[in-house]
Amino acid sequence: MRVVTLAGGVGGAKFAHGLAMLPGVALTVIVNTGDDLELHGLAISPDVDTVLYTLAGLANPETGWGLRDETWSAHEMLARYGAPTWFRLGDRDLATHLVRTRRLHDGVTPTDVTGELAQALGVRARILPMSDRPVRTRVRTAAGWLGFQEWFVARRHADDVLEVRFDAITDARPTERVLAAVATADVLTIAPSNPFVSIGTILALPGMVPALLDAAAPIVAVSPIVAGAALKGPADRMLQTLGEESSALGVARHYAERYPGLLDGFVIDRADALQAPAIESLGLRVLATAAVMQDEADRARLAQEVLVFAGELRA
Amino acid sequence: MRVVTLAGGVGGAKFAHGLAMLPGVALTVIVNTGDDLELHGLAISPDVDTVLYTLAGLANPETGWGLRDETWSAHEMLARYGAPTWFRLGDRDLATHLVRTRRLHDGVTPTDVTGELAQALGVRARILPMSDRPVRTRVRTAAGWLGFQEWFVARRHADDVLEVRFDAITDARPTERVLAAVATADVLTIAPSNPFVSIGTILALPGMVPALLDAAAPIVAVSPIVAGAALKGPADRMLQTLGEESSALGVARHYAERYPGLLDGFVIDRADALQAPAIESLGLRVLATAAVMQDEADRARLAQEVLVFAGELRA
Repeated sequence: MRVVTLAGGVGGAKFAHGLAMLPGVALTVIVNTGDDLELHGLAISPDVDTVLYTLAGLANPETGWGLRDETWSAHEMLARYGAPTWFRLGDRDLATHLVRTRRLHDGVTPTDVTGELAQALGVRARILPMSDRPVRTRVRTAAGWLGFQEWFVARRHADDVLEVRFDAITDARPTERVLAAVATADVLTIAPSNPFVSIGTILALPGMVPALLDAAAPIVAVSPIVAGAALKGPADRMLQTLGEESSALGVARHYAERYPGLLDGFVIDRADALQAPAIESLGLRVLATAAVMQDEADRARLAQEVLVFAGELRA
Repeated sequence: MRVVTLAGGVGGAKFAHGLAMLPGVALTVIVNTGDDLELHGLAISPDVDTVLYTLAGLANPETGWGLRDETWSAHEMLARYGAPTWFRLGDRDLATHLVRTRRLHDGVTPTDVTGELAQALGVRARILPMSDRPVRTRVRTAAGWLGFQEWFVARRHADDVLEVRFDAITDARPTERVLAAVATADVLTIAPSNPFVSIGTILALPGMVPALLDAAAPIVAVSPIVAGAALKGPADRMLQTLGEESSALGVARHYAERYPGLLDGFVIDRADALQAPAIESLGLRVLATAAVMQDEADRARLAQEVLVFAGELRA
């Protein structure tokens, strides 16, 4: 079964991992690259790497991002040299950025570099950057427009987000492989990632929403909000400052109003089951289940339930 | 007292460290850059870094090169990615190459980058790359012409060297700061580094030997060969395959014949004291002392003795 999921970082990577664990699933993960940055001359693609490391079984289980058994020697030495250290790069992680940067300089596309990295780490799923052209997410706060990582990492997403924009998005396009994966999918899923700065970035690519609307497969999104709070990151506060309520319903409404007709189904946690009727009134079918992924078994179970749910939608 | 030393890697760095420890010495180290390489997209300058780390008190005491308390996480991950790993880069060391590469891309000269790195690590001596233009040492062996690091590191200098050449040397020049340091020095020294691929590279720069011959200061070289063997590296075997005997006398003869009038004094180990008359017959004054630097006290003592010896030459 050809399964595609749109994903951002930690939450998306966990859900993708669940899908990747299922027998009979040929998985393609389409990953947000709006968070990419260049630092110390290195091309860094945080969400792609989080998906890569998670699917390779190498992710740091404490943080969800970065590599397990990481060391920080280069970081300490960079600090000694007075180099910027607000974005901490682990030593093992550095190797990924070195290889990526080198291959990009060789003229290899981000898509193909990601494929090389994934193959080297034994990842069987296809990890596709959403685009081979650069897109840079920026957020407007009371302090003005900030680069995504400046806001997210350097300022620890403390500033309320009043607006989101994607620099260079009009020049970017989904890759041919992204479009082909969408067109030929049996099931399309949207991972429990931030609807604005992870999924929203992918959906902002010219041609992406039409491609999803044209796809034959049902589209199911998993709520990143459970019991009013984001499982990870600032999605809950962003919902509020961007005009929605911080709830599974708020996420569903955001998708339904912003992208009419896109979603067929919406997966929420049992804690939010009372919101199901309101979500259904938006024209979405709802699955209420245990949507919090505490361990790897949770990931596989949730993924399995989402696929079964999607199969019912198609029937 | 303004002291200048020409230096390669480990042996040169130890001698420079001895000079740097002496009160009243304003030290300039002119360092070979013919061993430089680019790897993983990083600009690596091994001899400059060995001098830098040694003068900063950060050198690995076991190897003489690299950093103490080093970790190898990036190296292991690079190996996983199938990246070249014949030149092992430690994690802390990587930070140096990242900062250097970044600053060179910013348009800063190698000389100024080195100054920034040295300042950040608290080094008071001036470390000057011999040139701001690239020079690449190559050696001819039975296997053909090899890049310096390919021969030295990848093939562990197992191949006999039949010839040495310095690619791009005719386009390179000593920097203005190198020439000024030579012209204004009170004492000029040549560290116990490889006469062919460390000191020889510096001396091959157009204008370098004339600048040394014009300098008012006495020039004293320290033998890198003690009791017929190189203290470090392949200098002893190179002497033989390049037509000299592997001895302090062989080194002295190499300098005297290749660079007539350059040296005023030559420092040898007491183990080689019997060679002193033959060296003196080349027109050089000789100091025989304990020339093997086992510890930091040895470095300072040898440096002190060399300066006293040079002072006598001038008088």
